[in-house]
Amino acid sequence: MEGVKSHQELIEQELNALKLPKEPANLYEPIRYILGLSAKRMRPVLTLLAAQMFGIGPRSVLKTALGIEIFHNFTLVHDDIMDAAPLRRGEATVHEKWNQNIAILVGDLMFIKAYQLLAECSDQHRANVLTLFSDTATLVCEGQQLDMDFEKRDDVSIEEYMYMIERKTAVLLGCCLQLGALQANARNGEQEHIYAFGKHMGIAFQLQDDILDAFAETDKFGKQLGGDILVDKKTHLLIQALQEEPEATRAAMALSGNDKVQQVLAIYERIGARAKAEQEMQAHFNKAMSHLDIIEVEPSKKEPLMQLANSLLVRKF
Amino acid sequence: MEGVKSHQELIEQELNALKLPKEPANLYEPIRYILGLSAKRMRPVLTLLAAQMFGIGPRSVLKTALGIEIFHNFTLVHDDIMDAAPLRRGEATVHEKWNQNIAILVGDLMFIKAYQLLAECSDQHRANVLTLFSDTATLVCEGQQLDMDFEKRDDVSIEEYMYMIERKTAVLLGCCLQLGALQANARNGEQEHIYAFGKHMGIAFQLQDDILDAFAETDKFGKQLGGDILVDKKTHLLIQALQEEPEATRAAMALSGNDKVQQVLAIYERIGARAKAEQEMQAHFNKAMSHLDIIEVEPSKKEPLMQLANSLLVRKF
Repeated sequence: MEGVKSHQELIEQELNALKLPKEPANLYEPIRYILGLSAKRMRPVLTLLAAQMFGIGPRSVLKTALGIEIFHNFTLVHDDIMDAAPLRRGEATVHEKWNQNIAILVGDLMFIKAYQLLAECSDQHRANVLTLFSDTATLVCEGQQLDMDFEKRDDVSIEEYMYMIERKTAVLLGCCLQLGALQANARNGEQEHIYAFGKHMGIAFQLQDDILDAFAETDKFGKQLGGDILVDKKTHLLIQALQEEPEATRAAMALSGNDKVQQVLAIYERIGARAKAEQEMQAHFNKAMSHLDIIEVEPSKKEPLMQLANSLLVRKF
Repeated sequence: MEGVKSHQELIEQELNALKLPKEPANLYEPIRYILGLSAKRMRPVLTLLAAQMFGIGPRSVLKTALGIEIFHNFTLVHDDIMDAAPLRRGEATVHEKWNQNIAILVGDLMFIKAYQLLAECSDQHRANVLTLFSDTATLVCEGQQLDMDFEKRDDVSIEEYMYMIERKTAVLLGCCLQLGALQANARNGEQEHIYAFGKHMGIAFQLQDDILDAFAETDKFGKQLGGDILVDKKTHLLIQALQEEPEATRAAMALSGNDKVQQVLAIYERIGARAKAEQEMQAHFNKAMSHLDIIEVEPSKKEPLMQLANSLLVRKF
């Protein structure tokens, strides 16, 4: 994972070196704050790794990678307003630390910064970079809206759920990789495979998150166990429960606190929800790997991406 | 004004013909709604007029013009959340008709749409179009933040106010014009003049708005008279009053309803605030015209822009 670590450090350095004006302070301080919070920088690292895999130096797609990280953080700032979330990465969210109006505007400005950085690629790639990015950003917005729509429904199907997480979470990972590949002039077919690799990894990753939230040991995972259950989040697990045992599940959801978590977990246990979610996760992980396999570059060049994928999905619980 | 009218109709047609998906309905219906409200379409018309003045057909910059109009409407959707405004163009705002979370996301998606349309220009102009647009959008965000910052201060200077409205309102008009000019391959110097024309027009336009809000006959203006006074908006007039008669002005601002409006208007009267604001407005109008004058195209080609400028600033009060 040496490549991954040095890429993370590179992104961190460049984010710190980002030239932002001082004034208006209420606009630029929150941007420095959110970008300065400790984070894995997985998305920009994917861009650098894909570029490298297809034969160009990571520095040649650095602006793209930074743009992607700033876009990702913009979505977090706006999502946190929508979710009324007090914390992000263990620290106060922008709308909590400043206020909501500032958080809206800070997000908007970060979005502009993202586009500026993405447009700084070479002339020959600009149209394709921007088209892929805008199309992906559109899907991310659609996914976020579907997620909010699902909050008010208890008849969401597994199919609808998979459709939503593909948009909200997964396509951005595919996009990050393809942005690296296309600037390395990878063939269209190869670009599609690397995109599909990222997308299926993203789906597997989200399913893992659902599972961890319900079943992880708290100290390993670093989040409150059963957080999703407490806020009635329509996860893969809860949707299974609502389908298999609708009445018992609704009754359990009407409880609160630890009782609620325990009751819902008991239903998950009865219906084998965890195993089904793990199965689906594994299927997408396998699909991802098959897309990576098929790409025609030296196997050794695929190593870093393969290792990263494995490391993301072996947070055993 | 025949050109202006047909351009407005063209923009209206194209906005109606814009292809947007049906689902998620909570995302795309609000976009159709806000873009469907009756509006002057001044900004995209400026782009078409500038293109025409420099010798290319308006249809060749139509995507750019649409992108600009969608960007403008995105800023309205987010600004209306920040101002907690119930009405926009006489109809319910998006956050009122749907909800605030939807309005945030709808704005974000409109911003993407704007970039998509702007990126659809010719390869040779793409980098310049996007740089100008992103730089301008950044200034617009900064202006909006300063405007919010000013709400909490009563020591804003006229200079700071002018700096703010230049960003929040004026530069976008300059940008609209330059986007047309640069795609018509106007020389850099000419592009700067048309931008400056738009910027100074925008400043004059905002000052006129300040004056109309305080002094217009209600039925002509179509807004509540003294609306700015009632919400302590730091306009050119109120800043003058706070500087000339700080105590009396603060006392008047502490009142409410019609009393407040009448007391503040009395101060405006005593200090000659209206004349000073009109002077400043006229100075920017003249500056705008001098930039238009200097541009080396046939005088007849400047007619539509000159007429539009005059029509915008002769809403006599």
